[in-house]
Amino acid sequence: MGAVYTELLDKIRELHALRSVEGVLEWDQETQMPKKAAAARAEQIALIAGLAHQRLASDEMGDLLSKAEGAGAADDPAHATNIRETRRDHDRAVRIPNELVREYARAASLGKDAWQKARAESNFAAFMPALQRLLDIRIRYAEHYGWKSEPYDALMDEFEPGATAAEVAAVFSGMKTELAGLVSRIMQAPKQPNSALLERDFPVEQQAAFNRELAGAINFDFEAGRIDVSTHPFCSGFSPTDVRLTTRYHKNMAAMSMFGTLHEAGHGLYEQGFSPEHTNTPMAQAISLGIHESQSRMWENQVGRSRPFWEFFFPKAKARFQALSDVSLDDWHFAVNAVKPSLIRVEADEVTYGLHIILRFEIERRMLRKEISLKDIPDAWNTSMQELIGITPPNDAQGCLQDIHWAQGIFGYFPTYALGNLYSAQFFNAAQNAMPDMWEQIRNGRMTPLREWLREHIHKHGRRYRAKELVKVVTGEELSPEPFMAYLNEKYGALYGLV
Amino acid sequence: MGAVYTELLDKIRELHALRSVEGVLEWDQETQMPKKAAAARAEQIALIAGLAHQRLASDEMGDLLSKAEGAGAADDPAHATNIRETRRDHDRAVRIPNELVREYARAASLGKDAWQKARAESNFAAFMPALQRLLDIRIRYAEHYGWKSEPYDALMDEFEPGATAAEVAAVFSGMKTELAGLVSRIMQAPKQPNSALLERDFPVEQQAAFNRELAGAINFDFEAGRIDVSTHPFCSGFSPTDVRLTTRYHKNMAAMSMFGTLHEAGHGLYEQGFSPEHTNTPMAQAISLGIHESQSRMWENQVGRSRPFWEFFFPKAKARFQALSDVSLDDWHFAVNAVKPSLIRVEADEVTYGLHIILRFEIERRMLRKEISLKDIPDAWNTSMQELIGITPPNDAQGCLQDIHWAQGIFGYFPTYALGNLYSAQFFNAAQNAMPDMWEQIRNGRMTPLREWLREHIHKHGRRYRAKELVKVVTGEELSPEPFMAYLNEKYGALYGLV
Repeated sequence: MGAVYTELLDKIRELHALRSVEGVLEWDQETQMPKKAAAARAEQIALIAGLAHQRLASDEMGDLLSKAEGAGAADDPAHATNIRETRRDHDRAVRIPNELVREYARAASLGKDAWQKARAESNFAAFMPALQRLLDIRIRYAEHYGWKSEPYDALMDEFEPGATAAEVAAVFSGMKTELAGLVSRIMQAPKQPNSALLERDFPVEQQAAFNRELAGAINFDFEAGRIDVSTHPFCSGFSPTDVRLTTRYHKNMAAMSMFGTLHEAGHGLYEQGFSPEHTNTPMAQAISLGIHESQSRMWENQVGRSRPFWEFFFPKAKARFQALSDVSLDDWHFAVNAVKPSLIRVEADEVTYGLHIILRFEIERRMLRKEISLKDIPDAWNTSMQELIGITPPNDAQGCLQDIHWAQGIFGYFPTYALGNLYSAQFFNAAQNAMPDMWEQIRNGRMTPLREWLREHIHKHGRRYRAKELVKVVTGEELSPEPFMAYLNEKYGALYGLV
Repeated sequence: MGAVYTELLDKIRELHALRSVEGVLEWDQETQMPKKAAAARAEQIALIAGLAHQRLASDEMGDLLSKAEGAGAADDPAHATNIRETRRDHDRAVRIPNELVREYARAASLGKDAWQKARAESNFAAFMPALQRLLDIRIRYAEHYGWKSEPYDALMDEFEPGATAAEVAAVFSGMKTELAGLVSRIMQAPKQPNSALLERDFPVEQQAAFNRELAGAINFDFEAGRIDVSTHPFCSGFSPTDVRLTTRYHKNMAAMSMFGTLHEAGHGLYEQGFSPEHTNTPMAQAISLGIHESQSRMWENQVGRSRPFWEFFFPKAKARFQALSDVSLDDWHFAVNAVKPSLIRVEADEVTYGLHIILRFEIERRMLRKEISLKDIPDAWNTSMQELIGITPPNDAQGCLQDIHWAQGIFGYFPTYALGNLYSAQFFNAAQNAMPDMWEQIRNGRMTPLREWLREHIHKHGRRYRAKELVKVVTGEELSPEPFMAYLNEKYGALYGLV
């Protein structure tokens, strides 16, 4: 390891240690902080975020990167990754003028307020000025970053490096009809689940204990992490040895915390799966939000909503929950896989979920191309909901005002949720091919082989590959919606008795 | 407010915001952090502490201070305080060479390990090399800081600015005989408390609920703070709007968590009592550890162990704890004020506590003067224990190895615990004089008048006065052990029926 690389690595570690400190402050804010502390916490976070950004965008970092690059190709792939990815982060950071960063921060803060108020009154018009301001600012960001085809690409690049709107559109276009078709066949199926059994009485303490059991069973390491309660569930990794999950509870919504926990624990396994020696470097970071989501979706859905999984865990659930005493494994398994068109994305099932994303992607792409005025968004939303999902929101609060993303100027993020499903299906097929007895293992409560496979093929690489490359390396295939659609068709065909 | 002061204030706020971030990281470590995260957390803390130290000791800070000082005396006492105290902090910081800071950090880390091992084996000799190293380093610190009479002063100045070993020795010398005399009269008193009733079954959940009630009743604001569990109880204020207390529980030790909570909540009221507009400046910081301790001791002992306090709260305690059903108010009040010579400082009662401190002060003063070799410490400790408290430790684990302070190179800290008691008695007398109906208020559960008085006369001043000055301003007296001794003699004379 040359002296230049060592010096660069020190700077990189310091930068990411600052980011991890910011993570601690944010986690504490969501889970522990007393309510009057908001202003003081905002100041702490702004300070640390500012220091991190300063370091990333500094001339010193730029010079060290140039020297490290000038020393020729690094032999060690970890060194090469850390140099390449820090160059990427540095170049993005220096492109944005400082005034614009501050303008954005203020607009996002005001945007969140305006959105909360507008949503409470279900009044999209009241949100429009703030949204227009944020959209304009983000378009200026896109201009500073630069793009080949359209501004959307420049913004999505933050969440899904290397992905383009055109690619996403191509992937989504086939899925759209197929998903809508599957939903309508499911709706017409004579066999329907009894999802009311999920609304019985599930005491919150029992749910919490069962969630710990589930998360532990899929190998989330509670000596290197913990689980708490927050309004909006999330996973935050400060290092591979400190990963915090959150969930939320309602005594009449057993599935929410159970699958929420499996979802966040799936994210957590990714964060715990980075090599500790690479802590605070790109080699111990997620490639993209899509890849992150592939891990959470896999444990939540492919594994956690499978019959073999519940063959093992349903007797344990019955032992904990009186409410399940008269419920059969088949009825439970069908209920947790109930498909039903609904208004709210975060409550959507596996099948309709993708349609919610496609709707958002199409609208926000038009926003960034300036092909739609904000005042036309409610109509566009409602028309699209009716067309794709078959229902029309009764008001904007349950329609185009439901998500916080736009209120924070976050455009280009939604596709990563759907990409996660696609990656997840492709990775899961590869895992099955590599381990023919995987379902047998899962049926017997042994989750370690799959976790080990994921760690070896995905987690430990950190940001070594771009998402598209990783899919290629791991599965030999390009990103494709087909494995995901095949999974849905097979699973829901069998459950709903479709022909 | 001049431009120079504004610029300086920005730097000061940034510095203390960094310190408050360090506080969050440390609080999280003690109360929430998963155990494998220790190494990553150490790195985060070292980074933030380093950034704070850099800023404090920077030439930029020195120049700004000089300019602000050059602008003439500030009209606003807050400005004058912030300039004067930051000058003090800056000057202390620049006196210590960077290598020495790092050497100390390493030695303290090794010292803690060596101490833990030595204590487990009750083997003081095994701890000696690490202790010698720390002592040498701290003497070098004292040399860099400079002192008038002896090195002890330079180190104590960190915890009790302006106090000297000679002053402390003078205060302690009279107390020593008086305290020992009082203890021996108490031991011989025919009337003795039934302290066994504190060891009955007090379910931990009930204790926790009662503690919240007590802390709330003395006006600890749970919207600007919280209470958690940790091995070693502490209070940490990140800002006046975010103050974290901890306590610990044992089902057969009701007094431990109850009075521990009142103690920490007393610290918490001080932290919550600073003016929020002064957040992250010396005007929203404690003067000294002695003054901090005066607040915790007052609520724990003067108020919390008083009969009027329990006239109000004992019925509430009885409603919560089955174990108290056959206990009278008098028996309870006597039991929570039981005096008994014991080996361990942190478990000592109000009367013997001071003797534990005097013992430590005398030994560590000799250490810093190089008047005692480390190998002679166990003998000195045991002789002094017998002389002052009347018992001899059966081993070093329960003797000179019990405290963590020396293992971290902390010398000059112990006196602040005893000074806290003295300040507390003086302040409490002043409060009583100012509010003749104070006990009547407390008897009726109204704690706000005392809290308001403390806020007005002590809390809101932050570091405006030195501890000694503040006592003068508030009470018109110099620091003196007499009010504290009078309080003890009167209270314990009555309880134990001494003549």
